Amino acid sequence: MTRPSAIAQSGQPLGPKHAKVARLRALLRDSKVREAESVVVLEGTRAVLDALERGVELEAVYLPPDGVPPDGVPVGVAIERLVPGLVERVATTRTPQPILALATRPAVFPPGELAKHGCVLVLAGVSDPGNVGTLLRAAEASGAVGVVVSGGTADVFSPKVVRASAGSIFGVPIAIVDDLPDALAALAVDGRRRFGTAAAGGTPYAAAELAEPIALVLGNEAHGLPDDVLAAVDELLTIPMAGAAESLNVAMAGSVLLFEVTRQRAGE
Amino acid sequence: MTRPSAIAQSGQPLGPKHAKVARLRALLRDSKVREAESVVVLEGTRAVLDALERGVELEAVYLPPDGVPPDGVPVGVAIERLVPGLVERVATTRTPQPILALATRPAVFPPGELAKHGCVLVLAGVSDPGNVGTLLRAAEASGAVGVVVSGGTADVFSPKVVRASAGSIFGVPIAIVDDLPDALAALAVDGRRRFGTAAAGGTPYAAAELAEPIALVLGNEAHGLPDDVLAAVDELLTIPMAGAAESLNVAMAGSVLLFEVTRQRAGE
Repeated sequence: MTRPSAIAQSGQPLGPKHAKVARLRALLRDSKVREAESVVVLEGTRAVLDALERGVELEAVYLPPDGVPPDGVPVGVAIERLVPGLVERVATTRTPQPILALATRPAVFPPGELAKHGCVLVLAGVSDPGNVGTLLRAAEASGAVGVVVSGGTADVFSPKVVRASAGSIFGVPIAIVDDLPDALAALAVDGRRRFGTAAAGGTPYAAAELAEPIALVLGNEAHGLPDDVLAAVDELLTIPMAGAAESLNVAMAGSVLLFEVTRQRAGE
Repeated sequence: MTRPSAIAQSGQPLGPKHAKVARLRALLRDSKVREAESVVVLEGTRAVLDALERGVELEAVYLPPDGVPPDGVPVGVAIERLVPGLVERVATTRTPQPILALATRPAVFPPGELAKHGCVLVLAGVSDPGNVGTLLRAAEASGAVGVVVSGGTADVFSPKVVRASAGSIFGVPIAIVDDLPDALAALAVDGRRRFGTAAAGGTPYAAAELAEPIALVLGNEAHGLPDDVLAAVDELLTIPMAGAAESLNVAMAGSVLLFEVTRQRAGE
């Protein structure tokens, strides 16, 4: 059931000093506030629809005085009106239709509770939010059963990651961990093989056995995997490069590896 | 042979109105000027080294008064000094060490002159410069024999594409064409099979025969392939998606497809 097109509006549009607007700004800016409130801010119509498609509950939608909520926003979701231009100013990105929405933050899981089959993607210090979002998207699209995120990785609930993930933060189970070697040990309990990645010197990825339950561990853009993580994996994978190319960026490499996993699993 | 560390400098550093500085700005801003002069501007040490690794000739290097040319810049390359802060202001991006360099633009080829074996990547209206650069990088890294670029695709010699390509604009043969159906016809002359790509409805990519000479045609981020291109390809490929994911972005999809080509060719 979608909201009727004629919407009863009450009260004045909210100005920049209203507590609800201050809260929106704080949620967009500050990971501690996001953590404490357990909500995620969605920016733009596409982000709202991507979340709704994945069954996410919206707490509220923020629109300009004349803005129309996208089809699919359920009746019962609070619609807040902001004074002209304020949605655009609060938002961290420009979108064709100005809209912000608050969604319940997805549950996060201990690594040991992720599904025992399939591939778990592990982000060990991936620092660029665009790369993290892209990798979450590739994880969901390839059918990975979960993503484990280290403390050194960009905040998965930050506006940039949410945007780059195109809804996938709501579509793939996520674990957030402080101690990555611990998490890798927990993943191995049921026989899951843990593959690190390296620009050179590892097993050529297409020759590796990736159809069994595995963890695929990707490191920092500049520094790769830290020593304690290298010591905690079972094997290293490398994507052989042609020409003078030195390495793919981490998002491209991750996409190639995740879809090779899917290809091998489908071939079983 | 690399330049001695003690460099004889002559004259005053160039100011913002100097003709050489005006030319740099024009080259960074205006594709017509780049075209007329047949040069490419490299921004940052990494871009200069990426170009040198691929045997590119530098015309000149622009540095702050106290800047040091990177190791590997050959003796004989003109070193120009700009007044303090000017290299940074002229540059379109921030890099750790301010440096700009002019390199000879790579030769471009008619599509029919690209190598007859292997995979040719065709960009049919990919509009985001970051995606174009990333795809050039994936093309080189995967061993594609060439990239054909349509008029509607972002300018491959623009600063953003040059940067995102990480040197690959110099590492993979490029054809720039106005008439894409014509170019696809030229590619087919020697029996090359032309694969378009679609978010749904095509052959699952891993089931397609990609080890023979092929062209892989990627479309616009929002609109996919135009009708005249769809009519000119032999078959459509689709990357099956899990979950609610709708499609990968074009750079990720292209990376997955290019490396599947490489995997199938290596398996011959």
